[in-house]
Amino acid sequence: MKYFVTGASGHLGQRVVKQLQQVVENGDTIFAGVHNMAKDKLFDGQSVQVSHLDYFDEGTIDQSFQNTDVLIYIPSITYNLVRRVQEFENVLAVAKRNQVGSFIFVSFFADQVNNPFQMSPFYAYVPRRLAGSGLKYAYVRNSLYADPLPPYLPELIERGHLIYPVGDQPLTFISRDDSAKAIAALATQPTMRDHGQSYLLSMTRNYNMVELGKLMTEITGHHIGYQPVTVEEFGKIYPNEGGAELASMYAAGGRGLLAEVSDDYHRLTGEDPTGMTEYLKDHYQAK
Amino acid sequence: MKYFVTGASGHLGQRVVKQLQQVVENGDTIFAGVHNMAKDKLFDGQSVQVSHLDYFDEGTIDQSFQNTDVLIYIPSITYNLVRRVQEFENVLAVAKRNQVGSFIFVSFFADQVNNPFQMSPFYAYVPRRLAGSGLKYAYVRNSLYADPLPPYLPELIERGHLIYPVGDQPLTFISRDDSAKAIAALATQPTMRDHGQSYLLSMTRNYNMVELGKLMTEITGHHIGYQPVTVEEFGKIYPNEGGAELASMYAAGGRGLLAEVSDDYHRLTGEDPTGMTEYLKDHYQAK
Repeated sequence: MKYFVTGASGHLGQRVVKQLQQVVENGDTIFAGVHNMAKDKLFDGQSVQVSHLDYFDEGTIDQSFQNTDVLIYIPSITYNLVRRVQEFENVLAVAKRNQVGSFIFVSFFADQVNNPFQMSPFYAYVPRRLAGSGLKYAYVRNSLYADPLPPYLPELIERGHLIYPVGDQPLTFISRDDSAKAIAALATQPTMRDHGQSYLLSMTRNYNMVELGKLMTEITGHHIGYQPVTVEEFGKIYPNEGGAELASMYAAGGRGLLAEVSDDYHRLTGEDPTGMTEYLKDHYQAK
Repeated sequence: MKYFVTGASGHLGQRVVKQLQQVVENGDTIFAGVHNMAKDKLFDGQSVQVSHLDYFDEGTIDQSFQNTDVLIYIPSITYNLVRRVQEFENVLAVAKRNQVGSFIFVSFFADQVNNPFQMSPFYAYVPRRLAGSGLKYAYVRNSLYADPLPPYLPELIERGHLIYPVGDQPLTFISRDDSAKAIAALATQPTMRDHGQSYLLSMTRNYNMVELGKLMTEITGHHIGYQPVTVEEFGKIYPNEGGAELASMYAAGGRGLLAEVSDDYHRLTGEDPTGMTEYLKDHYQAK
């Protein structure tokens, strides 16, 4: 079996490649699709083949996808919507031409019909396109990554409160490590994929900001309450992190559209995902 | 109030323009956006201003949308998905810049996440994009048009049976006249629009092919049964009607994805939509 992972040098992609190596069988090959080949060193010492993949250079896609049994498509992080659609269309065209055996799309759960997140149209577009493509496919919908929370704790201790502009609505999280583990499980278990299945990757419960602040208080020993700013203020406080995109995401959160929870992680792995308490403890104490 | 209708020279657009004239108030103006200006004669003798509108010529969009209070966007019938997305993006950009007061999107009900219809990604893309646009909006989802059925009856009488490749699944219909009436009602009633509302325009019941054949038999006096062909055969029998597109649509029908029914027509108009019996009778006898 040939597994091909796109976006393999990204935060999630690296972890997917690592997890795949844990679960593939002897004789299987793992290909890591990398845009910036300066990053190929990331895979030194791993049983992985690196393949140059530029979503806008069809030759590189074509060469990458040859004889691929399972393609794990992790989209680029461009926030230009039409460009992201075109990127996917390029990937799909070559996947069809090369008769890729199984297409796994790594999506995001902000895809509801009334979701104001800037990229929600893309996350709705792709599964429908796959449904009409003739390819075998499945997709995972990630919830919010928990990974940025631990490094954010020192700032929160100083502020004394969370400021996410989501009011009384809860948010759902998953760690990138767990997401990658579930994706690798999906890729390597044919019974779980190939029929348009959808999996929401999330912890087993969500947290409103009162709950999250309380948990952070317990773990850090510093009081962290909740004093929300507006969506606009939030965008101005963190302009470098992509203010407008983040703002549209928290606008979705404030409408209760980032609160879905499921048992799908357990369905795919037979294990419970890491919970927020454990995740924060492990990564706060590690500092 | 300035109402602007795109695709105004099309089968639905012409009817929307006519219906609007019935319900607007004194002093309101109706603009008909027309791509092929040779068709401007369609509106001779009507209280309508014709405006040249080319979705890929931003100048024409900009001029068309000036001071528009209510924009009724009827997409073009291109089946090139990326081009259709780009068309919408062009419309949206100018609608935002010109601060269009209310955006009404005329959509289609084949928009479910697992719908294989070739254009389903577009119908899912647009409402999400509007949700994040800052514009006031609402949209209608048309069911299948009943209009092609009456002219199809002579062929069905000759065949002796319906051949739609949808198995035991029902299909839902609406006449273009009723769709246009509901759209005009929505456009002219501010309480019904502007908050992302969604309306499914359909008759009050759907029909599987046994039921539809029975009804056609009663109305024509000729036996019309049901002997489905495959999706592929169907595409070959009607190549001129866009075989691949039609085939993907009936593939959706066969999965039960063109069967949704609602009471929304009544909500918008206070009246019942024309039922299938009445519609077929009126239009078969008229021959």
